[in-house]
Amino acid sequence: MSALSKNTPGALETARLIAAGQLTATQAVQQRLEIVKDLEPNLKAWVSIHESEAIEAAQMIDSMPVSGKIHGVPIAIKDIFAVKGMPWHCGSELWKGRTAEFDAGSVALARRAGGIVLGKTETTEFAFYQPTRTRNPHDLSRTPGGSSSGSAAAVASGMVPLAFGTQTSGSIIRPASFCGIVGFKPSFDLIETGGVAPLSRSLDTVGVFARSVPDASLLVEALTGLNLQPDASANPTKLPVYRSPVWDQAEPELVSAWSAFEEGLAAKFSVHKFAPEIELALAEAPDLHARIMAAEAAEALAYEYAEGPETLSEALRAELEKGSAISADERLRDRQAMRSLRHLVEGLVPRNAVWLTPSSTGPAPLFETGTGSPSFNRIWSLLGLPCCSVPLLQTHDGLPMGVQVVGAMGNDGGVLTVADWLMARFGQCWSQQN
Amino acid sequence: MSALSKNTPGALETARLIAAGQLTATQAVQQRLEIVKDLEPNLKAWVSIHESEAIEAAQMIDSMPVSGKIHGVPIAIKDIFAVKGMPWHCGSELWKGRTAEFDAGSVALARRAGGIVLGKTETTEFAFYQPTRTRNPHDLSRTPGGSSSGSAAAVASGMVPLAFGTQTSGSIIRPASFCGIVGFKPSFDLIETGGVAPLSRSLDTVGVFARSVPDASLLVEALTGLNLQPDASANPTKLPVYRSPVWDQAEPELVSAWSAFEEGLAAKFSVHKFAPEIELALAEAPDLHARIMAAEAAEALAYEYAEGPETLSEALRAELEKGSAISADERLRDRQAMRSLRHLVEGLVPRNAVWLTPSSTGPAPLFETGTGSPSFNRIWSLLGLPCCSVPLLQTHDGLPMGVQVVGAMGNDGGVLTVADWLMARFGQCWSQQN
Repeated sequence: MSALSKNTPGALETARLIAAGQLTATQAVQQRLEIVKDLEPNLKAWVSIHESEAIEAAQMIDSMPVSGKIHGVPIAIKDIFAVKGMPWHCGSELWKGRTAEFDAGSVALARRAGGIVLGKTETTEFAFYQPTRTRNPHDLSRTPGGSSSGSAAAVASGMVPLAFGTQTSGSIIRPASFCGIVGFKPSFDLIETGGVAPLSRSLDTVGVFARSVPDASLLVEALTGLNLQPDASANPTKLPVYRSPVWDQAEPELVSAWSAFEEGLAAKFSVHKFAPEIELALAEAPDLHARIMAAEAAEALAYEYAEGPETLSEALRAELEKGSAISADERLRDRQAMRSLRHLVEGLVPRNAVWLTPSSTGPAPLFETGTGSPSFNRIWSLLGLPCCSVPLLQTHDGLPMGVQVVGAMGNDGGVLTVADWLMARFGQCWSQQN
Repeated sequence: MSALSKNTPGALETARLIAAGQLTATQAVQQRLEIVKDLEPNLKAWVSIHESEAIEAAQMIDSMPVSGKIHGVPIAIKDIFAVKGMPWHCGSELWKGRTAEFDAGSVALARRAGGIVLGKTETTEFAFYQPTRTRNPHDLSRTPGGSSSGSAAAVASGMVPLAFGTQTSGSIIRPASFCGIVGFKPSFDLIETGGVAPLSRSLDTVGVFARSVPDASLLVEALTGLNLQPDASANPTKLPVYRSPVWDQAEPELVSAWSAFEEGLAAKFSVHKFAPEIELALAEAPDLHARIMAAEAAEALAYEYAEGPETLSEALRAELEKGSAISADERLRDRQAMRSLRHLVEGLVPRNAVWLTPSSTGPAPLFETGTGSPSFNRIWSLLGLPCCSVPLLQTHDGLPMGVQVVGAMGNDGGVLTVADWLMARFGQCWSQQN
């Protein structure tokens, strides 16, 4: 059983209609609230929906001249971001009942650009692995992935055209893959993280979900002022494919879809190769990523651990204890190794490089088994590189899987352009296809 | 007129006495609270003093076996850190009346190590330049410096042996210099910044104030688990002096004291030289630092600007508007330039390098004129290098000024060892000298 709304306009289209006077922000919000009412009982994507505040904000926007990039566009915010007057539970027992007193910097920037916050979406506990109650819109018996579970499900189902997520290991690209939508994790540190509950300061990255690449670009443009719309005239001659050191973790459904995808690239197919010293280092990258994440999480969540270890899930408690047990010298060495590896890649990989690799090990697993594996994401999160997942693959049963476009540090525009080209050539947004 | 308490034990000494059963944490706290009562009317270092909570926490510590590095040691926390149940005003009109619901990660780590929080200390508005009401303990007509004004004054006056500060441009080293104490800004990102109000994510660094180098080391050891006690057997053969590209901003009193200091180094004196490509880049560093800080502050404080521009000081409002006006492409170029410069320095400066440079342009200016200039700090903040200010210099009128020990990225231990050697050879903590 699925829960998808068809034919909702995307973010660019919504903004265009509002600017043209063919739709008001208030109507746009009301339309989405209708869909939310319809689908939420099955999906459970939201921590809280703020109907009256959203309509009030939309009326205010309707009374103002069009200015920002997302003037009147409804958005959803993952519940590790602070949003004034809304819950800020971070998926945790400890913070149940907390209300934020301010907006995270990125949320304030989205509002400045005209975005209307509909509410807060479910997140795994502090963006780690403890599953939420959210279901996958394509198959309610499956997980939407984590940690940005609610944001991905809300966008995939058509409840909102845009949502905020964060990625520390695979928390944007993986749920985008499982939910058949576009997920974009920009270059590390491109978007302000103030007011977002921290998990691992070397890795935490704010990113977005949308149902098309230009829509994802639009939200990041609104937050950064950059021009990131994909170059529609681009026609890449070669699309380098990189199966990566974790290919042995690909599940049969992915292996089969991926091979078909490589064949489909035809003359554009090429094999991506890193310099040997990078290749060597990448084999160690997943373990390095996991150690840094655990060590930094133990520092970032020191208060939560002290205050109520019994309110934490067993998995998170174990992670924090694992992190605390890593010696100070090993932490220093690990972070030095990460910095060196980032330098090495920045020095040896051409600035305009882009390559394709799977977004996830396979399709969304069953709900009861957790939020899926971030194996195909850890390396790129460690390197801080821009990644965009596009919904191009499917299983025999029609479940979505993503192709991950990764690029050199700072090549966010190049990644989005290739992602958009792939969508135009091979796909369409999954949730519109069904 | 000054306001200094003499002969209070340092942090290591306090911890030693408590561990030896010669002092209880409760007594240690009560002694400090007496001093606070005495001096606070003149110094105005505190936003809030939490007497009963501190005594309660001390009694709890007294009932437990000695474990952490700062078991029972009173500490003060700059009011941009969240401390549960205490004010979190960030020196701002907008946040007047706010109480934090959790501890910043670093505060939780300090408590885990046995530290007792006495209260929150005055900070300039969001750690920018709007002065606080705090006075300099050595001369009440002067500023303690900013932004960590209250923490520096509280340590200098003997109200606490240890305090937390942060530095984005010169907010630890400058007030340490003006207040005649030890200020230590570790390597960028060594200490968790979660729960600290952000100003500029590429630069914000948590650090400490103390009245001796080993005491400063102790607190950073408690937070990181590293072994950072200065090597007391070290005897540097050469102490490279670097007057830096901003030497022309040195005031006459500094020029004269600095020349005498250089002479005093005698055979150990040498001139520090960077590679020519670094030297070239450092000339641009202060401007680059200022642009990055403004651009990132405009993102970090987007909510505060949107919510109540009229509650912000004129200077901060102007800074945020200056930051917003910097184009997205220039922001990217600037941060790329910063990263390249950090790489360059990491590649060309030996890992064990240490050099000496002034901490501030001169002594503490008069209270009415602001919090002093961060000129001698911007470069090192931009590079993210560890810096320690030691109170070795004075004006003809006996006002303190600091010598800044700077080291290669990650050489926190080397910086502290040289700082300690300098103190042993040339100085003693200023506030004990008077």
